[in-house]
Amino acid sequence: MYRELKERVLRANLMLAKEGLITLTWGNVSEIDREAGVVAIKPSGVEYDNMTVDDIVVVDLDGNVVDGRLRPSSDTPTHLELYKSFKEIGGITHTHSRYATSWSQAGVPIPALGTTHADAFYGAVPVTREMTAAEIEGEYEKNTGVVIAECFTDENVMAIPAVLVASHGPFTWGKDAISSVKASIILEEVAFMAWHTLSLNPNAKISEALLDKHYMRKHGKDAYYGQGEKK
Amino acid sequence: MYRELKERVLRANLMLAKEGLITLTWGNVSEIDREAGVVAIKPSGVEYDNMTVDDIVVVDLDGNVVDGRLRPSSDTPTHLELYKSFKEIGGITHTHSRYATSWSQAGVPIPALGTTHADAFYGAVPVTREMTAAEIEGEYEKNTGVVIAECFTDENVMAIPAVLVASHGPFTWGKDAISSVKASIILEEVAFMAWHTLSLNPNAKISEALLDKHYMRKHGKDAYYGQGEKK
Amino acid sequence: MYRELKERVLRANLMLAKEGLITLTWGNVSEIDREAGVVAIKPSGVEYDNMTVDDIVVVDLDGNVVDGRLRPSSDTPTHLELYKSFKEIGGITHTHSRYATSWSQAGVPIPALGTTHADAFYGAVPVTREMTAAEIEGEYEKNTGVVIAECFTDENVMAIPAVLVASHGPFTWGKDAISSVKASIILEEVAFMAWHTLSLNPNAKISEALLDKHYMRKHGKDAYYGQGEKK
Amino acid sequence: MYRELKERVLRANLMLAKEGLITLTWGNVSEIDREAGVVAIKPSGVEYDNMTVDDIVVVDLDGNVVDGRLRPSSDTPTHLELYKSFKEIGGITHTHSRYATSWSQAGVPIPALGTTHADAFYGAVPVTREMTAAEIEGEYEKNTGVVIAECFTDENVMAIPAVLVASHGPFTWGKDAISSVKASIILEEVAFMAWHTLSLNPNAKISEALLDKHYMRKHGKDAYYGQGEKK
Repeated sequence: MYRELKERVLRANLMLAKEGLITLTWGNVSEIDREAGVVAIKPSGVEYDNMTVDDIVVVDLDGNVVDGRLRPSSDTPTHLELYKSFKEIGGITHTHSRYATSWSQAGVPIPALGTTHADAFYGAVPVTREMTAAEIEGEYEKNTGVVIAECFTDENVMAIPAVLVASHGPFTWGKDAISSVKASIILEEVAFMAWHTLSLNPNAKISEALLDKHYMRKHGKDAYYGQGEKK
Repeated sequence: MYRELKERVLRANLMLAKEGLITLTWGNVSEIDREAGVVAIKPSGVEYDNMTVDDIVVVDLDGNVVDGRLRPSSDTPTHLELYKSFKEIGGITHTHSRYATSWSQAGVPIPALGTTHADAFYGAVPVTREMTAAEIEGEYEKNTGVVIAECFTDENVMAIPAVLVASHGPFTWGKDAISSVKASIILEEVAFMAWHTLSLNPNAKISEALLDKHYMRKHGKDAYYGQGEKK
Repeated sequence: MYRELKERVLRANLMLAKEGLITLTWGNVSEIDREAGVVAIKPSGVEYDNMTVDDIVVVDLDGNVVDGRLRPSSDTPTHLELYKSFKEIGGITHTHSRYATSWSQAGVPIPALGTTHADAFYGAVPVTREMTAAEIEGEYEKNTGVVIAECFTDENVMAIPAVLVASHGPFTWGKDAISSVKASIILEEVAFMAWHTLSLNPNAKISEALLDKHYMRKHGKDAYYGQGEKK
Repeated sequence: MYRELKERVLRANLMLAKEGLITLTWGNVSEIDREAGVVAIKPSGVEYDNMTVDDIVVVDLDGNVVDGRLRPSSDTPTHLELYKSFKEIGGITHTHSRYATSWSQAGVPIPALGTTHADAFYGAVPVTREMTAAEIEGEYEKNTGVVIAECFTDENVMAIPAVLVASHGPFTWGKDAISSVKASIILEEVAFMAWHTLSLNPNAKISEALLDKHYMRKHGKDAYYGQGEKK
């Protein structure tokens, strides 16, 4: 049941580990099957080294486990809130990758400073507002999804598929699990570069024309990057 | 004799090396068997590459070798002092990992700036006071344990299982050897992130509510992170 | 057809990936066969892991594909512009390597601060001027080559075989594809070192005599570095 | 002829590469056989990947090749000058490792800031004076050895077995080739830590008592670190 969905989610989680974005058991990737109304996600606190497809947990949109023998990631309600808020999101990744997490802890958005950024994110990567004590003490993980959703509209959510949760770390998304992992990889590169760029030149910025050009040549309707299959 | 204890300590030392926290022969991990009144620890100055279970040294709580043909780590008296000071400590790790050592040399505590920190350390990681010349010229390694112990109480020693020894480097601990290695891994991540966070925003901090939430969801009595076995 | 050229370009692209200068599918290497009037280059958006010699694309100097079943790198017009501007360039590499890209985004030339730099680059690595909106919205990739060419003369283009494209990243070149990859490797080292050097001492610089000595002992007519074959 | 000497020098050069201190063909290790009056050293500009014992070059103290079919490292006269200046030096390593080279380019000595430093270097690692144009244009590599030798006396040369050549990079030494490689590994760690320590606390320093204690417990006449064989 849900075999292919679970295999894709396993592969995406293992890609995350292979790319060096994971320490210990941190981080998680999920993918939604909107027709079946289910989400497959990494189990909570399990090591990446030995993870198998049977460890992947499938939940419905209320968070009830419908397949799998382990507990789902404790961040599952954040993922569900994002899937429910934005219909185009097909996969979600959460990491504590070093540079993106540093920006999250600093509470500073990552500005668009070059084409590496513009190729993936059509503008600054925003930071969520600080959550209230009530939001934290209540349905914390769900509310994390709520403050993320506040940063985006249906119009820009797929054009800037990343956010920095204040005092926490990054979430990224895409049309499927693998795309969301790739957005996490790019976000970490961009976070590294922005940190070093601003220390050399605090006034650095990319021109609007260049931001437009690079984003559109990869993601616009006349995209000409790659082999003809829009990524 | 003490075969299982020595095997656990070997595995923990090798995990430390595999995680990239070790240069040359630096660092050491130990575990105590409180019933038998003995501690197994890495031998002094031996390379990790070829270390076998027979290289692990077992000492009593006065530091006398009771098993093994090599000299124990020169830091053994520090480990013993900590085991004697705090009954809950089951394993101890010492490294010269790059970022945690930089904070130690700077003499600056690592503040809690995000959930990566809060998931493992319930508050700032303290720095020991500078040792006096008499303490250094006397029983130096034992006194290193003494100044560490001064930073903690029975109430908080397992909630903040890490310390920065001034002008030296970090020690971490846990319920067993592997847990103490994991605390060293996390400490190095946290030290990296805090360094970069403060350079982006010197006023960054985590709210009390978020610190509480993250520490408690992993370590509190109603912990719900992981697969039901408290780590 | 063009088998050896394509094999050299494949090896150069794989060397780039092996040296850790590549994230995802970013970056590309090309080499020109000036007699045949063709350039072999990496295909657009293809993963390095599975790349074979048949994936390499051969284009003429107008950018028409003359061999290969994939689309050439979207940066192909930049490469062609450089080959047409400077007759001595035999191979070109483009990366988004972390430190060199940070300097590019900052818009700051990398000054010659030591012999590591002087061994490869006979002076500061320049930054291109910002492109106009018209240049970006027009033949963008060709115009990238134009602004690079503006930074060099026939006299110095092989003595400083690297440039930082403003808000974008580095291009390097050499007598062939492998030489251009080596220049990218060195540029990343030099970019790292310059960043850290200036933060220790903003007034650091190398003497003219030392810059001359190191450049000339490797590249001058009486070069004596290596095994007698000028690199 | 000189088989064992050459094998030790090969192993030391390969250890340098394995430890990640080498980019391309940079760096070199040598060892002296004082009885035979010869020095074995890495050949110039040869890749580490395929280096064999037959590539190692043996020269006499005037730099004449007495064994081997390749040219010796272009830095050979620097090594020879150091062997002639200090009788206790048995092996020498030169690298362009990232952090130590950054300090060299900055022209700033690496201060002793913690026990990692004190375990290997009994005081700050000095920087050579800037060489004159005449020294650079004359016997440059020999003169590099001369300005290094000016920084040390017979009394401290083995207690601080490292130097930063201004605008260039580090040299380290020891009783044999492997010891000099280990000093280069430690120097790079120490250079990293000092850079990050001072950015956290510009006034950081180690007490005299702690510097003495750590240096002496490893290198003094009553050394008790390791397994009883002084390293």
